[in-house]
Amino acid sequence: MIENGWLYEDSYFNSFSMAWKVKKVLHSEQSKYQKIDVVETESVGRMLLLDGKTMVSEKDEFVYHEVMAHLPYMVSRKCEKVLIIGGGDGGVVREFAKHADIKQIDLVEIDERVVEVSKKYFPQCTSALDDPRVNVLAQDGFAFIKSKKNEYDVIVVDSTDPEDFASGLFTTDFYNDVHEALTENGIMMNQTENPFLDEYGIKKIYQNMRKAFPFVQSFTAPMLIYPGVYWTFGFSSKSRKATDLDSSKIQKMAGLQRSLQWYNMDWHRCAFANGNFHKRMIGEL
Amino acid sequence: MIENGWLYEDSYFNSFSMAWKVKKVLHSEQSKYQKIDVVETESVGRMLLLDGKTMVSEKDEFVYHEVMAHLPYMVSRKCEKVLIIGGGDGGVVREFAKHADIKQIDLVEIDERVVEVSKKYFPQCTSALDDPRVNVLAQDGFAFIKSKKNEYDVIVVDSTDPEDFASGLFTTDFYNDVHEALTENGIMMNQTENPFLDEYGIKKIYQNMRKAFPFVQSFTAPMLIYPGVYWTFGFSSKSRKATDLDSSKIQKMAGLQRSLQWYNMDWHRCAFANGNFHKRMIGEL
Repeated sequence: MIENGWLYEDSYFNSFSMAWKVKKVLHSEQSKYQKIDVVETESVGRMLLLDGKTMVSEKDEFVYHEVMAHLPYMVSRKCEKVLIIGGGDGGVVREFAKHADIKQIDLVEIDERVVEVSKKYFPQCTSALDDPRVNVLAQDGFAFIKSKKNEYDVIVVDSTDPEDFASGLFTTDFYNDVHEALTENGIMMNQTENPFLDEYGIKKIYQNMRKAFPFVQSFTAPMLIYPGVYWTFGFSSKSRKATDLDSSKIQKMAGLQRSLQWYNMDWHRCAFANGNFHKRMIGEL
Repeated sequence: MIENGWLYEDSYFNSFSMAWKVKKVLHSEQSKYQKIDVVETESVGRMLLLDGKTMVSEKDEFVYHEVMAHLPYMVSRKCEKVLIIGGGDGGVVREFAKHADIKQIDLVEIDERVVEVSKKYFPQCTSALDDPRVNVLAQDGFAFIKSKKNEYDVIVVDSTDPEDFASGLFTTDFYNDVHEALTENGIMMNQTENPFLDEYGIKKIYQNMRKAFPFVQSFTAPMLIYPGVYWTFGFSSKSRKATDLDSSKIQKMAGLQRSLQWYNMDWHRCAFANGNFHKRMIGEL
């Protein structure tokens, strides 16, 4: 909702709100699935909104996209085939595509208009979508994942909040399907909400993840445009802990990380040392 | 500013804002120094505002207060005499007072009305102000610090943003005065703003700190009620790195940390592994 030149987020939480001064509305449409808006703001540059919820901004997109790709890549012993569910802006694809040993990147985004709008307004994010290793599939993530067995080394669930049609992406049934679609040492990454504003939701999400995966850990990173900013992310794996970096990749990453804005291996090794209230929420204390 | 039942922060940044749904205004006064308000919100409980800026909330006060006290305590080889400049809410004092080997805690808060209002509305924070080791001094922090030499083992600068009368708390001159007031192995802790919204400010603050101290490091923690939430903090010391925990304190802390909401030693050891954009801002990369 834009009022007096300010964009107020249509937040998942109804007693806390963030607002950005808007220079210009660049795009607005109602797709088959949702309302898609692109606005130019003063403090975070261009911002993509789906049904009034902030999804991506030029200013902070590097955080989410880098951690979601490089962290599982560095833990995975063999990271050749990757799936991203949601994430039609292409940012996570861009980061995975920086690794030459990745052979296939499938992006399953139900709403192809999100991909098209992102190509026009966020070319910095979509730059790898034309990479020959990348397949952009306009399909329903739930049905897609059910059809796959033992196929992907990493699956990133790049979802919105657990309400409406995205709520299914936070259930044990869905996590079991992801588990089945992963290869032997596979890793699932997902966003798991704000621990100050959604304590109950987080408890439930991590309980569900633990029912499907033997190794479940959590880290945080700032998402400046998400409600409450301080954001938790989940790492779930079949066989490895999140801080077990694959030694064969370390030298190459030492070179690559110099060009990144967030990810570095020191951060990675330390990322899972959380504050007590967060540990208690996810059952670690 | 309260409008239609929502409190909008009078932010240091003029193109980004956060807002909280207000249940009730509990207190409003103009003290000699500033406007003091206490409001009851839906999402973060009671909140203290000074000149319209959010200072403390019941929901997240544990983060700031625990890290500002336990982190320097654990690094300091001898932590007997502590000074807090600002911080009239008493939260940092409360955390230091949990350590029996601390002999004296001086709180220099220029505005005694902040202390009185906090005693009435934030008793959870002020609970240690009556401890016989605590001296509450209604004095100007700048003049106070200039009068002290080689006296405090830890100094916490619990300040507002670098504007108006608090801007002096971010200068090299002030950091030099703090350096002089510290004992041989002394440590200064301070809040150093949001790296997304105040990149230039942070660069300058860390440059100033480095002119006064040989060891300067930075960590982040979420301050749900501060602009942009993701908050940087400075650790400056005369002789020790921030991750060198004093071995004689580890066993005792292992017991105490079970009762804390944020601080634990695993977090402490990992807290200084920052993302690249933050490292670049503070001159570490």
